[in-house]
Amino acid sequence: MRQDESTGILDRTIINLRRAWREFMSSGREIKPFDPDPDLPDADKKRLVKLLHECFEGKGGDVSSHTRAAVLGQAYLKLNKTGRRRYLEVLARDFALDRETIREARRKLDELENSPELASDLRELLTPPRLKLLTQFNDLPQGVKFLVDLRSDLRSFMIADPVLKGLDDDLRGLLESWFDIGFLELKRLTWNDPASLLEKLIEYEAVHEISSWSDLRNRLDSDRHCYAFFHPSMPGEPLIFVEVALVNGMSGSIQDLLDEDAPAIHPEDADTAVFYSITNTQRGLQGIRFGTFLIKRVVDHLARDLPNLKTFATLSPVPGFVNFIKTLTEGKEHELLSAKERSELEKVTGSNSLKEIITMPDWRQKITDADPVREILLRACASYLVEEKNGRKALDLVADFHLNNGARLEYIHWLGDVSEKGMRQSAGIMVNYLYKLGDIEKNHEMYCDTGKIVTSAAVNSLLKTIN
Amino acid sequence: MRQDESTGILDRTIINLRRAWREFMSSGREIKPFDPDPDLPDADKKRLVKLLHECFEGKGGDVSSHTRAAVLGQAYLKLNKTGRRRYLEVLARDFALDRETIREARRKLDELENSPELASDLRELLTPPRLKLLTQFNDLPQGVKFLVDLRSDLRSFMIADPVLKGLDDDLRGLLESWFDIGFLELKRLTWNDPASLLEKLIEYEAVHEISSWSDLRNRLDSDRHCYAFFHPSMPGEPLIFVEVALVNGMSGSIQDLLDEDAPAIHPEDADTAVFYSITNTQRGLQGIRFGTFLIKRVVDHLARDLPNLKTFATLSPVPGFVNFIKTLTEGKEHELLSAKERSELEKVTGSNSLKEIITMPDWRQKITDADPVREILLRACASYLVEEKNGRKALDLVADFHLNNGARLEYIHWLGDVSEKGMRQSAGIMVNYLYKLGDIEKNHEMYCDTGKIVTSAAVNSLLKTIN
Amino acid sequence: MRQDESTGILDRTIINLRRAWREFMSSGREIKPFDPDPDLPDADKKRLVKLLHECFEGKGGDVSSHTRAAVLGQAYLKLNKTGRRRYLEVLARDFALDRETIREARRKLDELENSPELASDLRELLTPPRLKLLTQFNDLPQGVKFLVDLRSDLRSFMIADPVLKGLDDDLRGLLESWFDIGFLELKRLTWNDPASLLEKLIEYEAVHEISSWSDLRNRLDSDRHCYAFFHPSMPGEPLIFVEVALVNGMSGSIQDLLDEDAPAIHPEDADTAVFYSITNTQRGLQGIRFGTFLIKRVVDHLARDLPNLKTFATLSPVPGFVNFIKTLTEGKEHELLSAKERSELEKVTGSNSLKEIITMPDWRQKITDADPVREILLRACASYLVEEKNGRKALDLVADFHLNNGARLEYIHWLGDVSEKGMRQSAGIMVNYLYKLGDIEKNHEMYCDTGKIVTSAAVNSLLKTIN
Amino acid sequence: MRQDESTGILDRTIINLRRAWREFMSSGREIKPFDPDPDLPDADKKRLVKLLHECFEGKGGDVSSHTRAAVLGQAYLKLNKTGRRRYLEVLARDFALDRETIREARRKLDELENSPELASDLRELLTPPRLKLLTQFNDLPQGVKFLVDLRSDLRSFMIADPVLKGLDDDLRGLLESWFDIGFLELKRLTWNDPASLLEKLIEYEAVHEISSWSDLRNRLDSDRHCYAFFHPSMPGEPLIFVEVALVNGMSGSIQDLLDEDAPAIHPEDADTAVFYSITNTQRGLQGIRFGTFLIKRVVDHLARDLPNLKTFATLSPVPGFVNFIKTLTEGKEHELLSAKERSELEKVTGSNSLKEIITMPDWRQKITDADPVREILLRACASYLVEEKNGRKALDLVADFHLNNGARLEYIHWLGDVSEKGMRQSAGIMVNYLYKLGDIEKNHEMYCDTGKIVTSAAVNSLLKTIN
Repeated sequence: MRQDESTGILDRTIINLRRAWREFMSSGREIKPFDPDPDLPDADKKRLVKLLHECFEGKGGDVSSHTRAAVLGQAYLKLNKTGRRRYLEVLARDFALDRETIREARRKLDELENSPELASDLRELLTPPRLKLLTQFNDLPQGVKFLVDLRSDLRSFMIADPVLKGLDDDLRGLLESWFDIGFLELKRLTWNDPASLLEKLIEYEAVHEISSWSDLRNRLDSDRHCYAFFHPSMPGEPLIFVEVALVNGMSGSIQDLLDEDAPAIHPEDADTAVFYSITNTQRGLQGIRFGTFLIKRVVDHLARDLPNLKTFATLSPVPGFVNFIKTLTEGKEHELLSAKERSELEKVTGSNSLKEIITMPDWRQKITDADPVREILLRACASYLVEEKNGRKALDLVADFHLNNGARLEYIHWLGDVSEKGMRQSAGIMVNYLYKLGDIEKNHEMYCDTGKIVTSAAVNSLLKTIN
Repeated sequence: MRQDESTGILDRTIINLRRAWREFMSSGREIKPFDPDPDLPDADKKRLVKLLHECFEGKGGDVSSHTRAAVLGQAYLKLNKTGRRRYLEVLARDFALDRETIREARRKLDELENSPELASDLRELLTPPRLKLLTQFNDLPQGVKFLVDLRSDLRSFMIADPVLKGLDDDLRGLLESWFDIGFLELKRLTWNDPASLLEKLIEYEAVHEISSWSDLRNRLDSDRHCYAFFHPSMPGEPLIFVEVALVNGMSGSIQDLLDEDAPAIHPEDADTAVFYSITNTQRGLQGIRFGTFLIKRVVDHLARDLPNLKTFATLSPVPGFVNFIKTLTEGKEHELLSAKERSELEKVTGSNSLKEIITMPDWRQKITDADPVREILLRACASYLVEEKNGRKALDLVADFHLNNGARLEYIHWLGDVSEKGMRQSAGIMVNYLYKLGDIEKNHEMYCDTGKIVTSAAVNSLLKTIN
Repeated sequence: MRQDESTGILDRTIINLRRAWREFMSSGREIKPFDPDPDLPDADKKRLVKLLHECFEGKGGDVSSHTRAAVLGQAYLKLNKTGRRRYLEVLARDFALDRETIREARRKLDELENSPELASDLRELLTPPRLKLLTQFNDLPQGVKFLVDLRSDLRSFMIADPVLKGLDDDLRGLLESWFDIGFLELKRLTWNDPASLLEKLIEYEAVHEISSWSDLRNRLDSDRHCYAFFHPSMPGEPLIFVEVALVNGMSGSIQDLLDEDAPAIHPEDADTAVFYSITNTQRGLQGIRFGTFLIKRVVDHLARDLPNLKTFATLSPVPGFVNFIKTLTEGKEHELLSAKERSELEKVTGSNSLKEIITMPDWRQKITDADPVREILLRACASYLVEEKNGRKALDLVADFHLNNGARLEYIHWLGDVSEKGMRQSAGIMVNYLYKLGDIEKNHEMYCDTGKIVTSAAVNSLLKTIN
Repeated sequence: MRQDESTGILDRTIINLRRAWREFMSSGREIKPFDPDPDLPDADKKRLVKLLHECFEGKGGDVSSHTRAAVLGQAYLKLNKTGRRRYLEVLARDFALDRETIREARRKLDELENSPELASDLRELLTPPRLKLLTQFNDLPQGVKFLVDLRSDLRSFMIADPVLKGLDDDLRGLLESWFDIGFLELKRLTWNDPASLLEKLIEYEAVHEISSWSDLRNRLDSDRHCYAFFHPSMPGEPLIFVEVALVNGMSGSIQDLLDEDAPAIHPEDADTAVFYSITNTQRGLQGIRFGTFLIKRVVDHLARDLPNLKTFATLSPVPGFVNFIKTLTEGKEHELLSAKERSELEKVTGSNSLKEIITMPDWRQKITDADPVREILLRACASYLVEEKNGRKALDLVADFHLNNGARLEYIHWLGDVSEKGMRQSAGIMVNYLYKLGDIEKNHEMYCDTGKIVTSAAVNSLLKTIN
């Protein structure tokens, strides 16, 4: 299954859709196929505009609309990166709200204060044609997946092309309604699931790469669970998945967790569930939150099935930590490190500045060997996680995710991830966030309202040593 | 399964939901259950408002919201008709858009002309709190069915209570998005389907009542097909279903079609598919159109599976016909009937006015026996179907439905339905609407744009005899 | 679905098989179809013998055999009662073991003492051709069901035609191997099962007739369970099923249990499971025991699922009781009744003999009203159940079944079944047999080894009053 | 999933069975577990005999028997190779037919001539206790798989231990009845099947090893089909599977067929189905033939689904060819090769004897380069396939399998399999056997009755050049 470089959509999917949609088109008797040049040159663009107008006006009734949507979708799939950007720009510009509509909306708005029942009509009025056009794709086979992938394209173009932002907002709103948490189904994935589904875990896993089918089987073994959310219109496509290890005691090292040769324990004997990887799979669903729900549902599910489990925690990276160190000012370094510590650092590494050390080519070697560095970096990490903020939110994105979910910062582990990526981003540090059943709501509320982060005694003592 | 008279919701469903939701509530540690009096007296109403506010503000994070939605839904199910009306009024009035928001919307609207990408934000702003509250019920088990049933309640109260109209519009918009045709699944129902599903056909069938399980089995036999649309969140609940008879030649009598003792023909030998009953099952989905799609998909499905089928037609009642006759003016009667005909009528029935005849206690007897009446009524019916309009649309609702779908008016049958209901509404007349594959789009477009109704030669000759 | 009177096989099944097998036949190029007269006159019988010989010799390889089996099976289905009997006689007589084979078997048997590994060869040798012929039908679609139904025919002919007994033994042996308990699947049947499956419960229920679909739904409700064994080759065909009521306290009246208007209790609140009906559905599987396993598996299943259940008992008829009374000798009557009792009987009924009373046209009326009769009959019933034997086995077949399974005789209920059948066979009496988990094996062993029947104190006290 | 070297049974299966069966045992109240030493020393063996006797006598009824079977099965799984052999010997020797029974059989046999209906009783009498004991395992979870694996053990011990032969015959007979073709289900396997099932293809494939999951996916792609037979009691365990390539024209090279980078053709465009691998997976089912049926069913299935397919053929090795050459006598060489050919051979390879050439360390190099060798070897191969016999059967086992199925010998390909194994066994030669729909039965019959092999013109011309 080769990846189409230009677009991020899988070849095989495209081929299937093209075939399926071609059939629709051929059954629509009076609509000519549309076979644009991959770049969507101006002549083809003109024809596109015409087709979109006809589609929007709904000539010929529902069946013709259906056929026209298939023609339009088919054409999109044939385009390359340039062509797709041009296609989306047509949609965004030519099918936005027009002045007339906006004037009418103003009249309606004036009446609204006395007739609040008009709100629905007004929203309808303010729905641009492009949104209705996008909705029509839903009725095609795999239409939802098409729209999710189209938004994935859109988001990559959006950066350079702000006019597409409004279209993205429209599409996000549509997908938010369709992907409402109430429609998602939580499933446990096991080695008995279809190979065609499981290979997607290998493909998508973003946190700790799955190296082989044997690695995958190990992650689905009796003491390793994997859960995912699915949408009924995208069966066989996990939207987000979480990997859980059932162990005794909170784990501190990802490499230990993933060791294929480690003896399996019986799930019913485990006292701790460690969530060691959460992966969003669909770029086209960015901004629609599933993660919170996933963790809580899995916790509920596990607590019910395996009553022996007492502790639910994550084993998470600190992806912004190394970057944070690299941007430390001298003043900040002086805050974090005492004079004595700086001189110890210098003795071991040749420099008294964390920032300098972390940019040395061989810093990893030095860090892993030297004891004072270990203490200093753990302390710096605690400080980074607890005190570095973006408004009320923790600066570190992973920390913010779990704290906002109501977790507490429990442990900070040295050499918890010695992979290349783990060292490069987190200086090898891994963190446990603890989901304590009775405290989740309280923690969440405190974090949201005041930004206060709940920490364990262990983390507190790290923080204390700073001051 | 007893029906709750006051509300139209099934007892059993309510009992199941109450149980399921009670479990949620008990897992939400800090939210007290809410056990209102069935009438929702003022004290309980006050508590309801408070709970709704907390739910809207989302205190305690997603899980608390979830629990609160269960508490609120549970409370709703406990109420009687009065209580539910009061509950819905609270939602409609206290959680509509407020003035402040409307003022802000005005500011936003002013910017919109230059920044069309703001449309999405503005729609979001114009979404009243009540709509967000309703959305939260979706995450409960069977939440979609709950909302559909809630709208069913709402529509029965709405008539006497116009303030609920806005709430209904909001809810319709939400359900329209969720029940987009792309999410519906077409399934053929057979005698191998669960009894718990099939009993719903018996319960819902609105056009030609199913009298027993043996009658039902007969309608699912090899030469009788039944198709329905399902939504993934309401498995086991057909949203709309159509019954089809596979026969040779277009049928004119519903009693013949439903005769359990008639010999079955092999489906592969049939040349005609007769759609003899279409039933919408969910009052809460009124205004959301599935019927058009259903017929066309079933036609496609049958055409592919049984290539011998050449003709696709309905056998439909004329539900407004008797009423139409009863409201004829004298002038209109003179238009429809020649002097000679009126005197013939008088000879047979004792009256020269159709209007008078149809209000006689024994008119049915007279009609079925008397030949001139037969001719006159068929002609009057053709005239009613083709010439009586509501704007561009046919006055008869069934006629409008099929004509708008692109069908043509093919035959008008005398004594096509001799049941009590058939006589009372349609004077026993049944009609074939023909779905001719190549003409559907053209017919639809003509009917929509000009109101012109395509008729067969047979119908035309009936019409001609009028003038 | 009309029953074919002559054969007991369902029309619809036959029609389906005929169609399916015809297809096979047409694909076998060189084998002519065989379309015998329904009576299988001699000419057709001759052709049958020829075909059977070819089939047995396996000319043309497996595929031809397959086709020939379809031709032979098809022909069988076309025959009437007479024809089928003649067909089976051909099989039984012309394809039994021949003398030559028996002589060879004698030689083999002589070697067997020294070479016990020859047993398998010898069994093979002693397998008559007819058994190999029957086995070939298994490879046809629904072949197993065909053989089961064929044996059902066979058993009805066998009575008058002892030469068929050997064929029946062969077939029973084959089916015993194929229907080994290890291949059967226990399933709970609910209202969510296919209507086509549930209608078979209505059709087959032998103990307490199911009067309507609403009665059936009541028997599948949350406090009524139904379990059945299925064979993978006969999906949709329950082999045996048992109906269980979840109640509080042991029930004594079948009419109370089946009352559709009785309020349902929550299954988790019940303390007692009452098995009130066990039905073998396939006459063709007579002599192959499933009942024992079914009850025990259902007990296990219920005990695991509903830990509140403390008591597992049946509510069973005493089908031989009235017959037993009718055949009482005078001496026996004197054993059962004291002089005082006989005079009391006479006062109330006009006769001092149970035997006479039970043959009076209005005995039912007299029994239900008169108190002394009640006591006397209950006592007589206890005596009948415990003391009347057929060898070591209880004379009453239902009693023997449960006692042999390890149950104990617990209660004898007056007017436990007031239906016509209940009065006619059991004089209205119903019995609880108790399955006490820890005692089942012990009771079974005692009953098997010594014929001793374990009884409750209540039954004991009835027995005591006799002596 | 580690393989247990000593026994060939998979660790994981054993672990699961042990757990499942332990539960049974614990529910059987009065039966002590049996935990023998892995070698089954004499003390344990004695206890085994005692348990087997109790089990055979059926003390305590069916439930106790069930528990005892679990205890006995559990014990077997704990044993090592030595222990298992001793266990099976106990079964074979101590539970064979005894003299008394044989004497009784002799009496029965005498009556048989007059009472052929006794055959069934006699077979029953001649069924040794060991067979009844084995049957009891069937009622355990996965009991069928247990017996199949037990027979796999048995067959490996049998070679050195002929007393086990009788037990193997008994077990084969039992499995033959249970695995009757009528109980097997043909399924197409695709990439959408469970990973736990697909990994078994990798594990079992015996003909052309599957090198990776990506190789596997390639073999399940749209133009590569895979079909297998399954038994309802062993879901997830293919019994035999065949791999088919859909191509244009008959393929001659297995390496070309398996090339992952070859472009896929659309299955509906293919004109030829090439069966390139057939694998029996269960050693415990040796001697029970599925292959014939599998090929014919797959041919039927493909012919129906893909009407474009005109040719059904295999691409098969000639596994006995190199061995045949190695055992050529001088006389035979002279028959096969003319003097001129022998001198040509000598020129190219330094030897004039095929036998000598094929034992040279570098013969493969010489063969692939030298043209005269090619001609000579192809001819020798044709001669080997057509003329070398074992009775009426072709000496080459693969040839015998397909010829007996009714195929004809179509093409002989040079360098059709250049893998190490292909060169070592078949000198790189591959063969097409053609399954021509109209001729299969005729070919089969001719081959069976006369041993005559049907060959194509191409093969005939190779044969002609010999003489």
